[in-house]
Parts: sequence; structure tokens; C-alpha cells
Amino acid sequence: TPTFRIALIAGDGIGKEVMPEGLRVVQAAAARFGFELDCRVIDWASCDYHAEHGQMMPDDWKAELKGVDALYFGAVGWPATVPDHVSLWGSLLKFRREFDQYINLRPVRLFEGVPCPLAGRQPGDIDYLVVRENTEGEYTSLGGVMYEGTEREIVIQESVFSRHGTDRVLKYAYELAQARKRKHLTVATKSNGIAISMPWWDGRADAIGQDYPDVKVDKQHIDILSARFVLQPTRFDVVVASNLFGDILSDLGPATTGTIGLAPSANLNPERKFPSLFEPVHGSAPDIYGQNIANPIAMIWSGALMLDFLTQGQGAGRAAHDAILGAIEAVLREGPHTRDLGGTASTTELGMAIAERV
Amino acid sequence: TPTFRIALIAGDGIGKEVMPEGLRVVQAAAARFGFELDCRVIDWASCDYHAEHGQMMPDDWKAELKGVDALYFGAVGWPATVPDHVSLWGSLLKFRREFDQYINLRPVRLFEGVPCPLAGRQPGDIDYLVVRENTEGEYTSLGGVMYEGTEREIVIQESVFSRHGTDRVLKYAYELAQARKRKHLTVATKSNGIAISMPWWDGRADAIGQDYPDVKVDKQHIDILSARFVLQPTRFDVVVASNLFGDILSDLGPATTGTIGLAPSANLNPERKFPSLFEPVHGSAPDIYGQNIANPIAMIWSGALMLDFLTQGQGAGRAAHDAILGAIEAVLREGPHTRDLGGTASTTELGMAIAERV
Ligand SMILES: CC(C)[C@H](C(=O)O)[C@@H](O)C(=O)O
Ligand SMILES: CC(C)[C@H](C(=O)O)[C@@H](O)C(=O)O
Repeated sequence: TPTFRIALIAGDGIGKEVMPEGLRVVQAAAARFGFELDCRVIDWASCDYHAEHGQMMPDDWKAELKGVDALYFGAVGWPATVPDHVSLWGSLLKFRREFDQYINLRPVRLFEGVPCPLAGRQPGDIDYLVVRENTEGEYTSLGGVMYEGTEREIVIQESVFSRHGTDRVLKYAYELAQARKRKHLTVATKSNGIAISMPWWDGRADAIGQDYPDVKVDKQHIDILSARFVLQPTRFDVVVASNLFGDILSDLGPATTGTIGLAPSANLNPERKFPSLFEPVHGSAPDIYGQNIANPIAMIWSGALMLDFLTQGQGAGRAAHDAILGAIEAVLREGPHTRDLGGTASTTELGMAIAERV
Repeated sequence: TPTFRIALIAGDGIGKEVMPEGLRVVQAAAARFGFELDCRVIDWASCDYHAEHGQMMPDDWKAELKGVDALYFGAVGWPATVPDHVSLWGSLLKFRREFDQYINLRPVRLFEGVPCPLAGRQPGDIDYLVVRENTEGEYTSLGGVMYEGTEREIVIQESVFSRHGTDRVLKYAYELAQARKRKHLTVATKSNGIAISMPWWDGRADAIGQDYPDVKVDKQHIDILSARFVLQPTRFDVVVASNLFGDILSDLGPATTGTIGLAPSANLNPERKFPSLFEPVHGSAPDIYGQNIANPIAMIWSGALMLDFLTQGQGAGRAAHDAILGAIEAVLREGPHTRDLGGTASTTELGMAIAERV
């Protein structure tokens, strides 16, 4: 049997609650489709490892993850004891960079049974992929403060875009669009206001586009693009965006489908030189932690993306992915539902219901 | 009679079509409420001044605007002949900075008669103000390209935040929130990803907040904040944001009320050391220009904000503002409607209908 080695990092807050349900479902799928997941629980979180050692991970974290094929990741963040930028740069954002997970793939889809906050939209109307650059751009610790603590204080924050980093995410998005029926790619930009990086980004999108003459490209400024996610969601197929813009769009998109509690994401190193990471878009939600009411579907769906990626989208993994997604669809349609969707089911009950259908 | 000197810059595209209607209405209001607008038409646009002189404005543009109290501004941008970043940095963005219009105030409101894209929302449910920093932050031309044109190309884009620029917009927003019934302020941030400027911005929001203990403050990351504009619009009262985040939120907010065609904005220099600028949020929309179908309400509403500001929100100007807003409400409720709202009225007809009611 093909075996994959998975590191389980539940993290903080509801990460700890949705992880067991995700695991329950992917294990059920593995059993059914004939492959094995060799899992290892790891406690790198604000409330666990950090509480004891004052840092999010051991110094030799890379060695500890040697041989791992994928990280199945809940959510980190516990602002009551560790500032968010510390917990995230010490964990999630570090994985994305040091494992060169340069693609953050986030499907957005409206399901039957989930009340849509947009008037008159049906399942099928909203169905697109956000491809987010995941290793550079606006997310940096570069820059600094001058005249610190005085009235004259000035802060510089630098964004960094490389041709290497930009071209590869654009290429990935063009390929993805080309393989789809509509072959439509939206490129998020803000070249009319952000005057150095964004006109350059537009130029790279044009240059890469030369190789994909059959892909229809549409460049849109992030302000109007955000408006159109609400006003014209049917027009989107594949959307490619910088780190920050992709972050915004991949929360906004799921919001238009009813809840970000369902949204999954895949942080991919497509070359498989490093392990990829699969996590829900939602965070650790300290406000609802401990009640067993969090919706585990984003975690479960992320697990489906993991199985699909591990097997290169072929054979058993693809079948396992489709089986999980089918089970999610069925449960959303027929229940049970967690509280965010108007039901009374617990996190555990939902995981069990989905696992059963798989 | 009190007299105000107004520079009229219609700009490009539909700017040229909505300007006459805005003017028609503010003139009607001025006549009714007893003050005078001394107006001057100025042709600084991509298709006018730039076509002839190769730049958006004459070198002595400041001298030409001497004594002007306000700029009533349509929209600039004509990408077919002038790249957007050239037309905007040579005009709108230059005014904002060199006239130190550091507040960009953008009301978001759902009207009766405008179909709401959010399911089940009623007029009254969406009613908040976006206060956008308007002179610094993410919008800069600072940075550059290294190894240009090669595979090793690297681009740095700098954002600049000053304590001076940050504190004043935060103060303005706290004051505004304090004067409102709900006294609620949402501070947009992204301190978990943008690691230098945004944690610092959060700190300034806390520091300024010390002086406003009765204002309820809620810091939200831009990704989840965008999602909540869709999922929980009733929770917002005053929202303060950096230049880029304010840009996004002030297109997204209006989109949730049905159309960005209605959204007005005031670019204010609250100290009145320089003229303020009033403009619709929408752009020049080359695709619909020339058909006389653009909705002029954003332009007209911006004119109402101008009259209100010119008279410091007191007396005749406030009355004129309220009369215009009342007329807009009535026309939205009872028609006529332009094409974007399902009607057949022309830009001109709409302007006339509103002017008549004023
Ligand atoms: C045209 C563009 C530069 C401008 C901005 O981003 O500020 C516009 O979108 C706005 O919101 O006024
Ligand atoms: C937690 C945060 C740093 C992260 C991000 O902004 O990337 C999250 O919002 C996401 O979208 O994965």
C-alpha cells in the first residue's frame, strides 16, 4: 500500500477541535481507497510548545519534519498570551516560506444547503479558485522605524516581489485556467496607486500570458475586484493575486458563499521538494474555543485537497478527494449542521457524519 | 451672500457626463439656500490638457488654483492613451497630497429603491462611514527594480507611515465615532502578516484611543473585515483604515449596497489650509462613456458633501446637503432610474429630476 507521512499540527483554539474530525475523515478515506497515512502529532502552538519554550517551534524543526510528505495544520494564534505576529511568523508563515509553498490555492464554492448572503445566487453561480502568492510580496519584516517614540516617528514597510516568485505563481494560474472549461483568468492588481511593484506585476502578467494565448485575461484593481466578488461573482473562474490581495480575496470570496468556516486551503510546493501544508482558511477563533461547536468542514475539505495533491491528482487520491467532497455536499444539503449554519450539531457529530458517508 | 469659489475638473470619460448634473444640483441648492458658487471650468484631464501638453496639469497648477475653496472633481483616467498611474499621480493623487487632504471620507448607505445584493438587508441595516488615510501609507512611488529585465529581477515597494499622518486620521475617526450615537470604531489592520507597519499602526490606534474612553474600538484584520462587510454589515459605524485598505473597503462597502455608482467621497483638509476635493468613488468608466447612461448620483452626493463642508456643517450648507440627500432618496425610491438600477433614464434626466426636487 502507498504510504504517506503526515505531520499533524492542530495548533491553538479551534484548531484543536477541528483537527480530530479532519483526521477521522481522511483516515476513513484512506482505508476505503487503499492507502496509508502514517501520522505524527506535533504540539507546535502558542499554548503548547511556546508556553513551555518561549518560541513556536524547536530550532531544529526542519530536522524533526524530515521525510514528512505533508503538514495537516489546524490554526495557530492565541493573542491573549502570544502576539499574533509572533505566533504566525514563528509557525505558519515560516512553513510557507522555508518549505517554499509558493502556491496558496483556495477554492470558493457555493453549496446547496448553505444560505447564501448574496441575494438570488444559486449553487453553481459561485465556483472559482483563488491562487494566492504565498512566499513574498507585502508580507515581510523588512523596514523599520525612525525617530522611534517621538512625534517625528516614521515607519517604512517594504514589500518584495521577485521575478522568480511572481512568474511561477502567474504560470501556475495560467496553467490552471487553461485546463478549465472557461479558461478565464483574473489578475488582481493596484497599479494605479501602488506605483512601483504593481505596474511591474502587470507587466509580468502580460509577459507570461504570451505563452497562453487561449486564456482570456482580465486585470482588475483590487478595489473594484472586491466589489465584483459581491456584485458579479459568476464572472470569476481563476483569480491570481499577490500575497496580501490573495489573503483578502480568499476571505471575501468564501464570505459570499455564506461562511468562511467552510473554506479550505492548500499551501503547495508544486515541485514536491518540500512538504506542502493543508489548513482551513479560518483562524483559531479563541471566542468559540472549548465548546465543540466549530464547523470542521474547512479542515476536512483541506484534508481532501491533501490527499489529492499527495497522489498527484491521480487514482486513489483523486477518488478519495471526490468521495470526501461528495460527503461534505451531502451533509451540507441534508444535515446535520453546526451552529454557524443554523444547526445544533457539535464539531464531533459533524465529523462523524461526514466520515460515515465516506 | 456668502460666496465659495469652486474649481470644476470634470476629467475623463463619464466624469464629463456626471459633472454637469452635479453642478446643476449644487447650483439649485445654492440658489435655494442663499449662497453663491463662483465656478471655474478646468480641463486637466488625460484627453484634454494631457493630449495637448503631455502632462496632466500645467507646472503652475497651484497658482492657477489660488483662492479656490474646493475642487469639484469628476474622474480622471483614459488608459487607451495615458497609463492610469500617470494620469492619477499627475492629478487626483497629487491633489490629495499637495493639498494635504488627509481625510478621505466615504459614507456607505443602503437606500430604499436600490436592490441590495445582500439577502434580507433593509435600508437602515447598512449605514456607516469609511475614514480612509489619504496622503501616505501604501501608495508611494518609493522603491525600485534591481537586475532589471533579467531573471534575477527584484522589486522593492515601500510603504510609508508617519506618526503625524497616522495620528491625525485616527483622531479624526475617533472624534467622528464619539459624535455618533453608537460610538463604535473599527480599525482595519493586518498586523499578523505585514510585520513592521501594521503592528505599529495598531499601537497608534491604542495610544490615540486613550483620549476617547467612551468609544468602543474593534481592531480587525483586513481579510476578515472584508468578509464581515458582507456577512455582518450592521455591526459597522465608523471604520478607519490606511490608504490601501480604505480604498478596498470603500469600494466593497458600496458594492454591498447595490452599486458603486452611488458612492461619494470627500477628500478633506480639515484645517482648510488648502482646498478640499469632492469626487465620486467610481472612475471614468471608458466602456460606458458617450452614451449618457452613467448614474450621476455619486457626483451629486459628493456635491452635497462639498456644500456641507464649505459651511462647516452649519446653517445653509447643512440644509443644502440635507435637501440634496432627501432629493436623492426620493428619486431612488420613486424613479426615474438610470440603467445600472434597471431604469432607462439618461444621466441628464436623473440630474434634472434631482435638481427639481431640490
Ligand atoms: C483611481 C485610484 C488611484 C483611486 C485610489 O485608489 O485611491 C480610486 O480607486 C479611489 O478610490 O479614489
Ligand atoms: C493568519 C494570517 C497570517 C494568515 C494570512 O494572512 O496569510 C491568514 O489570514 C490566512 O489567510 O492564511
